[in-house]
Amino acid sequence: MNFIDIINKKRLNKELTTEEIYYFIDRIGKAPDYQFSALMMAICLNGMTHREIADLTGAMLYSGDIIDLTAIEGVKVDKHSTGGVADTTTLVLAPLAASCGLPVVKMSGRGLGHTGGTLDKLESIPGFNISLTQEEAVKQVNDMGVVIMGQTGKLCPADGYLYKLRDVTGTVQSIPLIASSIMSKKLAAGTDAIVLDVKCGSGAFMKSLDDARALAAEMVEIGKKLKRSVTAIITDMNQPLGNNIGNTLEVIEAAEILKGNLKGDLYEVSLTLGSEMLVLGGIAESTEKAREMLDENIKNGKGLAKFKELIVRQGGSPYVLDDYSRFKQPKLSKEIYLDEGYVHAFDTEAVGRASAALGAGRTSYDMPIDYSAGIVVNYRIGDKYDKTAPFAVMYSDDKDKIKDAEEIFTEAVTIGAEKCDKINPVIEVIR
Amino acid sequence: MNFIDIINKKRLNKELTTEEIYYFIDRIGKAPDYQFSALMMAICLNGMTHREIADLTGAMLYSGDIIDLTAIEGVKVDKHSTGGVADTTTLVLAPLAASCGLPVVKMSGRGLGHTGGTLDKLESIPGFNISLTQEEAVKQVNDMGVVIMGQTGKLCPADGYLYKLRDVTGTVQSIPLIASSIMSKKLAAGTDAIVLDVKCGSGAFMKSLDDARALAAEMVEIGKKLKRSVTAIITDMNQPLGNNIGNTLEVIEAAEILKGNLKGDLYEVSLTLGSEMLVLGGIAESTEKAREMLDENIKNGKGLAKFKELIVRQGGSPYVLDDYSRFKQPKLSKEIYLDEGYVHAFDTEAVGRASAALGAGRTSYDMPIDYSAGIVVNYRIGDKYDKTAPFAVMYSDDKDKIKDAEEIFTEAVTIGAEKCDKINPVIEVIR
Repeated sequence: MNFIDIINKKRLNKELTTEEIYYFIDRIGKAPDYQFSALMMAICLNGMTHREIADLTGAMLYSGDIIDLTAIEGVKVDKHSTGGVADTTTLVLAPLAASCGLPVVKMSGRGLGHTGGTLDKLESIPGFNISLTQEEAVKQVNDMGVVIMGQTGKLCPADGYLYKLRDVTGTVQSIPLIASSIMSKKLAAGTDAIVLDVKCGSGAFMKSLDDARALAAEMVEIGKKLKRSVTAIITDMNQPLGNNIGNTLEVIEAAEILKGNLKGDLYEVSLTLGSEMLVLGGIAESTEKAREMLDENIKNGKGLAKFKELIVRQGGSPYVLDDYSRFKQPKLSKEIYLDEGYVHAFDTEAVGRASAALGAGRTSYDMPIDYSAGIVVNYRIGDKYDKTAPFAVMYSDDKDKIKDAEEIFTEAVTIGAEKCDKINPVIEVIR
Repeated sequence: MNFIDIINKKRLNKELTTEEIYYFIDRIGKAPDYQFSALMMAICLNGMTHREIADLTGAMLYSGDIIDLTAIEGVKVDKHSTGGVADTTTLVLAPLAASCGLPVVKMSGRGLGHTGGTLDKLESIPGFNISLTQEEAVKQVNDMGVVIMGQTGKLCPADGYLYKLRDVTGTVQSIPLIASSIMSKKLAAGTDAIVLDVKCGSGAFMKSLDDARALAAEMVEIGKKLKRSVTAIITDMNQPLGNNIGNTLEVIEAAEILKGNLKGDLYEVSLTLGSEMLVLGGIAESTEKAREMLDENIKNGKGLAKFKELIVRQGGSPYVLDDYSRFKQPKLSKEIYLDEGYVHAFDTEAVGRASAALGAGRTSYDMPIDYSAGIVVNYRIGDKYDKTAPFAVMYSDDKDKIKDAEEIFTEAVTIGAEKCDKINPVIEVIR
């Protein structure tokens, strides 16, 4: 077998065999980068069959460690979001689903660019430790039902290599490559079933519904081929999902939902994802029944209690959830007023960048984060805004950062004279 | 301007601007190989417009030295063949056209793989020197009308880089890339007009007539955009063009044509190309008239005299053309007999490889060559072969090489019971 022959085959739009796919993944670290980038471009343009995509997922999955969660009883269900702004569903869902009896092992990541990361949000809670070994994680879930942690082991090094190379060779935009990248990492995390939250809109990687649908369908298909239950939910990302953007701010919003004080789009998406998780996990017979269980555990306080239990178990202070002033506080705040009218649109990616500019995010993984920085957005698409209240409030320790962020934010919001419909946050479910 | 944006643009099948094309060519040696290979693959699959191809040709042309032939009076006409087997037209044409008054500056290359190279053939003439400076070449053409030499200066280094990279990244097969590569090198050689011999068939790079036509049309189009006269002639390469394959053997066959002793396909293609050259060079009004002039200079011996004059001027012994035994002689020969029947087909590339295996060619540029090695093929497609004479004769200094070559050669010839048409060597002319 020969790498150049494989590239030529894909250039000629022929289907690669299983052996050929495992061969080129095995050549990572041995063959030169320029052969991989040529092949990635050929895949971008000629695509891959479902079979090829499943094989590529498998080859990347088996290129590194695979987490062994068999010591945890029950069906392990993971949730994955393709990334958005004010997307805090994990902090709502993980404790809430666990409080219903679903074992939850959630491996999360850090924020980068315009999107936040669950690990950063949790680390805004004083003392919270995200670095657990696989054994500690298994024991914790068996003891109290839920863990949220950073990745352990060397999962999917092949994906890591290709991901970096694609980033600098114009070969990012490819459904087969994106789907196999996501799924290989999720499957390496050892879960039995996965609920995928595929974001769609101005703040998402997939801007169009067609692309989001294609990606969702492809990931469900990979699940079928690799014998895992996968449900994908396409959700709207044409505006921040929650009202709060920023690490501490998002923990607070999740706590408010768990306390039963807040509904809205973040609540809606969290419960939709959570319902699918309970069904896949065999905890509920139907999504309707599952939703009742989740809602019940908000009302009776079991979800909030599980969140506090999780915080305590991972070394953090649960008192912040009772008294938000115990979080590190921002030195400055600024109220943002915009022109009157109806809220028509957000450039949600820019809103995410405005929050990052305040100190809440980073553009490279070694940048420090200001946990208290961020934006609270008081209005959503379809709302009438009459200037009696601030449209948004910005928080930061730095005057100049607020100035930069305000500029980005005000350009990112479109307000018009005409009335405008609200947006349904859940678009469709693909099983 | 940013390389990744340019790759993404071509991935999305958008037309690159002139500035973008010059930018990425300028990035050679600065940007990493993997970005170029991704872009080359995107060009392979999405193609380029005529304008983009002309710009790419220009950008590669201006990446290095450009030969200045303005000190030579008259229209300088170059000839280029895309490469074949027993393709010795240059040795016939260059002196013959020069004998008609056309100034001929021919920069040639060496043989590689299954194709021979004009420089190797000339070096089989004792003493012949192919290393001339630009000044020496100009003076020689002004003095006596013709020079055949190796490339001087650093022509098209950008093409050199991309050519090597494409070879190892499955991005060779692309009309825009092949056309711009050939044309940039030819234009850098400083000629005013070019006659292209685009080979088509089992011994050519372009196996199908459609591909050959597309390549020929694209190169003529580049000529129009870059204001040079270009005529392309598609010729057949489904069998060796001449009867003789190998360096000395091909010099002898060219000499036989110039002596008026031999017609056939090599004669036919040489005179067709030569006629176009004389017309482009303003020496003849029509190709019919040009052909008469060329034929006349075979009959009156002026073509042969010019070839001898060229050999003398470049340090070689002209006596070899009068007495072929003055060439280095092969130690061994072997007559090859095949089954009776009609000659149906040649795997011409394999025939070229058989000749190389005898010692006449090389697989890397540093391999030595045996000038006397080669094959004389006595039959052509459509001929009846009755075993009364050898089908071919092989020459080499090495018994084992003959054994290897015989095996390759006999497998490369298809003989059948049914009658079969002869092939016309000139397929079409594209202006």
